[in-house]
Amino acid sequence: MFSESNIDVRYPDVDAMGIVHHAVYPVWYEVARMDFFAELGFSYAAMHAQGINPPMVNLNVNFMATVAYPAAVTVRTQCLAFGPKKLKLGYEIRDGQGRVVSTAETFHIWTGPDNRSIRLNEALPEVYERFRSKIGTERETL
Amino acid sequence: MFSESNIDVRYPDVDAMGIVHHAVYPVWYEVARMDFFAELGFSYAAMHAQGINPPMVNLNVNFMATVAYPAAVTVRTQCLAFGPKKLKLGYEIRDGQGRVVSTAETFHIWTGPDNRSIRLNEALPEVYERFRSKIGTERETL
Amino acid sequence: MFSESNIDVRYPDVDAMGIVHHAVYPVWYEVARMDFFAELGFSYAAMHAQGINPPMVNLNVNFMATVAYPAAVTVRTQCLAFGPKKLKLGYEIRDGQGRVVSTAETFHIWTGPDNRSIRLNEALPEVYERFRSKIGTERETL
Amino acid sequence: MFSESNIDVRYPDVDAMGIVHHAVYPVWYEVARMDFFAELGFSYAAMHAQGINPPMVNLNVNFMATVAYPAAVTVRTQCLAFGPKKLKLGYEIRDGQGRVVSTAETFHIWTGPDNRSIRLNEALPEVYERFRSKIGTERETL
Repeated sequence: MFSESNIDVRYPDVDAMGIVHHAVYPVWYEVARMDFFAELGFSYAAMHAQGINPPMVNLNVNFMATVAYPAAVTVRTQCLAFGPKKLKLGYEIRDGQGRVVSTAETFHIWTGPDNRSIRLNEALPEVYERFRSKIGTERETL
Repeated sequence: MFSESNIDVRYPDVDAMGIVHHAVYPVWYEVARMDFFAELGFSYAAMHAQGINPPMVNLNVNFMATVAYPAAVTVRTQCLAFGPKKLKLGYEIRDGQGRVVSTAETFHIWTGPDNRSIRLNEALPEVYERFRSKIGTERETL
Repeated sequence: MFSESNIDVRYPDVDAMGIVHHAVYPVWYEVARMDFFAELGFSYAAMHAQGINPPMVNLNVNFMATVAYPAAVTVRTQCLAFGPKKLKLGYEIRDGQGRVVSTAETFHIWTGPDNRSIRLNEALPEVYERFRSKIGTERETL
Repeated sequence: MFSESNIDVRYPDVDAMGIVHHAVYPVWYEVARMDFFAELGFSYAAMHAQGINPPMVNLNVNFMATVAYPAAVTVRTQCLAFGPKKLKLGYEIRDGQGRVVSTAETFHIWTGPDNRSIRLNEALPEVYERFRSKIGTERETL
């Protein structure tokens, strides 16, 4: 199970070199992550309503090729590892020619209303089971 | 009474033309506005603690000259008009050579904890009097 | 003749108040402006290829209502005034409920490869005539 | 040899959670990197004049604690590895209480005017030697 997000480059995303600045990619990866959660049936709005939040503890981005303006890119997002307390997502950005321009991994922990770590399987067992069934059991368990 | 804020251009502030993108200027003007409030003795933290907020209802920016990277600019901020419910600030940005590169005016209303318009002289009479005495009575009353 | 642009709010567009920060609106207005030029048959890429650029000399934005996340907005863009050396555009942003949340005007001058002011009707007469016929003669002449 | 950069949090850096958004950290790390190069005697302006550029090929950021507004942070930057074609930098951000809130590593390659990989020791031997002497020989060679 994966999600796909189509994103248009905006003019101020580009720096003096005429290419998308590297600090824009984390924003694109976040747009893609929100789409991924929505596709799992656990949107940002639903999370927020439950007081659940998956803060990022690590961001690792590879930059393989540049993107100019105007252009559109597609981000493909999937779950790399999943467990009661943690989540690792993987991403791949392709440009209009299908070339991979960047890949990334982000690592998150599940936190509750007091910003403390929680066990998602205890806090929201129904959501946890839905994740597990959609993401599949072949994934590394965290 | 006015405040001055020194700001360094950051590399991603610059667009493909090699000049600071116009959407960066509102951020600089906000940095300057926060400095102005702090200089008045009513910092953002103090406002926030009181549940007071001055949302912007109009932003008017003139762009006279470009700014490249690396560079530093200075923003000079003053109050143009002041009243129990409203506030108008004026700004001027100069580059390292003293050339005026941009001017702006922002118009704000005072709101309280429920985001409704308030009369600052009733909500925080001591703050209001401090503003009035520092800003001076020569200003247009709103 | 007008163009319409649909824009999704992104999570980092929102500030500590939970509403889209005012410095994001100029970026939305620029996305809309690029769409407007493309609709006129004179896209950013085409302009860039000709060495033509319409730098902004004034930005005037009104903020009537707030926008949260997640949400989508629509920007409607039209030409308010047009002449050989200048261009004034008008914009209106509506939220998903059709409420106008912001309006703006931007004022631009036409510049050529050396960043000097040009007369568009002399530099690119075909483009100028296309603009004039699509925008209509009822507009204020600059 | 290391450099230190002092950075003030700006209001729009903060997201709806009231904490600095993770996409701001790469901008802070870039400010710090520019300071590091300047301290080495090879500023961005000098690089640019020579047509030399160190594009980022990997960005790896750890997030340990949150930063609110208003606040100031300090970024400490050093070279982790260095070679004719490559460069690895390490960073540490501390808040006003001296707490480490984030660490990062960035990996860069040296490119020349045509955006192709170069050997810095051949392109700019004097700069390369300066780097090597200041950075020290205890570093991993790339």
